[in-house]
Amino acid sequence: MAQAVDTSSYLIAPDPTAARLTRKVIGTDQTGAAVEATVVEERPLTIFLNGQEIVTAMTIGDYPEYLALGFLRNQGMLSTEEVIKGVDYDEELETVVVRTQSQTRYEEKLKKKTRTSGCAVGTVFGDMMEGLSDVRLPDTQIRTSDLYALAHQINRTPSLYLNAGAIHGTVLCQGDRPLVYMEDVGRHNAVDKIAGWMLSEGVSPDDKTLYTTGRLTSEMVIKTALMGIPTLASRSGFTAWGVEIANQVGLTLIGRLKGQRYVCLAGAERLIRDADLSTIPDEPRKAGRKAG
Amino acid sequence: MAQAVDTSSYLIAPDPTAARLTRKVIGTDQTGAAVEATVVEERPLTIFLNGQEIVTAMTIGDYPEYLALGFLRNQGMLSTEEVIKGVDYDEELETVVVRTQSQTRYEEKLKKKTRTSGCAVGTVFGDMMEGLSDVRLPDTQIRTSDLYALAHQINRTPSLYLNAGAIHGTVLCQGDRPLVYMEDVGRHNAVDKIAGWMLSEGVSPDDKTLYTTGRLTSEMVIKTALMGIPTLASRSGFTAWGVEIANQVGLTLIGRLKGQRYVCLAGAERLIRDADLSTIPDEPRKAGRKAG
Repeated sequence: MAQAVDTSSYLIAPDPTAARLTRKVIGTDQTGAAVEATVVEERPLTIFLNGQEIVTAMTIGDYPEYLALGFLRNQGMLSTEEVIKGVDYDEELETVVVRTQSQTRYEEKLKKKTRTSGCAVGTVFGDMMEGLSDVRLPDTQIRTSDLYALAHQINRTPSLYLNAGAIHGTVLCQGDRPLVYMEDVGRHNAVDKIAGWMLSEGVSPDDKTLYTTGRLTSEMVIKTALMGIPTLASRSGFTAWGVEIANQVGLTLIGRLKGQRYVCLAGAERLIRDADLSTIPDEPRKAGRKAG
Repeated sequence: MAQAVDTSSYLIAPDPTAARLTRKVIGTDQTGAAVEATVVEERPLTIFLNGQEIVTAMTIGDYPEYLALGFLRNQGMLSTEEVIKGVDYDEELETVVVRTQSQTRYEEKLKKKTRTSGCAVGTVFGDMMEGLSDVRLPDTQIRTSDLYALAHQINRTPSLYLNAGAIHGTVLCQGDRPLVYMEDVGRHNAVDKIAGWMLSEGVSPDDKTLYTTGRLTSEMVIKTALMGIPTLASRSGFTAWGVEIANQVGLTLIGRLKGQRYVCLAGAERLIRDADLSTIPDEPRKAGRKAG
């Protein structure tokens, strides 16, 4: 494995040794020998907004308060003007209650929902698309030297992924510095935890870049845009609708970022191509199927 | 790239050349040169059960009828006794309507849902867990020689993944033969399409193996168990809850299947270790981060 980088510059870095996030399970390998495998935890967390149960998310279980806040924010159930009175996590009950000063938009949304559909499974897409028409992202430029530096650091940061696999990571970055690195079994949870942290800390999105280990689907592009972050990068690939929405809202979208290579499918005019490619180590192109 | 295998033995194989499933998008690469990237489509499909709108799924758009049937079946909204009168897909409206002879369990479920929660996002977990306590999977043995043969064939089958990336695959297999290979932007859709095909064709799950490119999360294990399939295999890793549920229902769970290597974390007593490892090519262990 490549040498791990120094993580002292992170505000929040993964904690791959946290006892509560992984479990050791005994199994057998291809020779029939007993092996101990480290696997990530996956537990329910039920999110309440004031008195109303909203959803049960499956999560590794760290930063439940950020997950709840970010989820409600990204679903449009908490507006930016809302005054948050408290966020109470109960580890035993596996619940988080977000309390606001005034009534939220939730009641209105619930009325609409029970009229138009039963209970949605998967992304509640209408809710997320709703806020999107107002979004105009700042025209922030991004240096390709920063992109390469971020990928290099993030790939070498000790993480649950490197320790146990089967987990997604999302990293909030500024310039060439990764600031907050969240992991979760669902990539939507990892990005919601970033959103919750930004909301709690009052962090401006204008000069930030979001890096995700997952694919650049419409859901990921919409969440990034709703968070006001102008640049989204990933090692993984694209969906056509993700590219369309990125163009519509003015998001710079960079995918398939591996070694020297990347493809920019939206906002390429905002790239400052200052990297000296001869100094960037390339990754060999791999044939066939990778883990998903 | 490794040489593609013959796909004539599949009942349904991916169609990587289908015009409707991918799109060519112009972007720029790391040198600033214009490049044409092939990206997968992602479109909404709204599923109705009789007169009731149930959900809008994001899908690549092939086999909408199987997706609708399999989704409703895996959510417990269609019991095995239900007589299906028709499944009508409207390409323009992006809807599928599943019609049953008698009233379905949906009304009962809806009532429960609006009482206990607003509108769920992500997996409607309660619904899926509900049917699980009755599940006892058949004590089907599996030959490791078949496992290796399946992985070899599936990894070399021409697919949207190999063509465009950013997509998951799920394959229904029997012995050493892959039968039905479905792909989709969400791995839950790919497995629901398999479930819909099985329901339509009246296929027995008892002697089948399900192969997925995705992770072995609780959702994937539960779906496989509800479909009655006794073996689930993947290149990817595990979550702790996925392992727990597999042990509970008697599912054989094999992960991290790459080259010669694999780890079996549930049901190892049902493996017949007949493969000659010296004939199985190994994959080099890779350091660092892979695409997610």
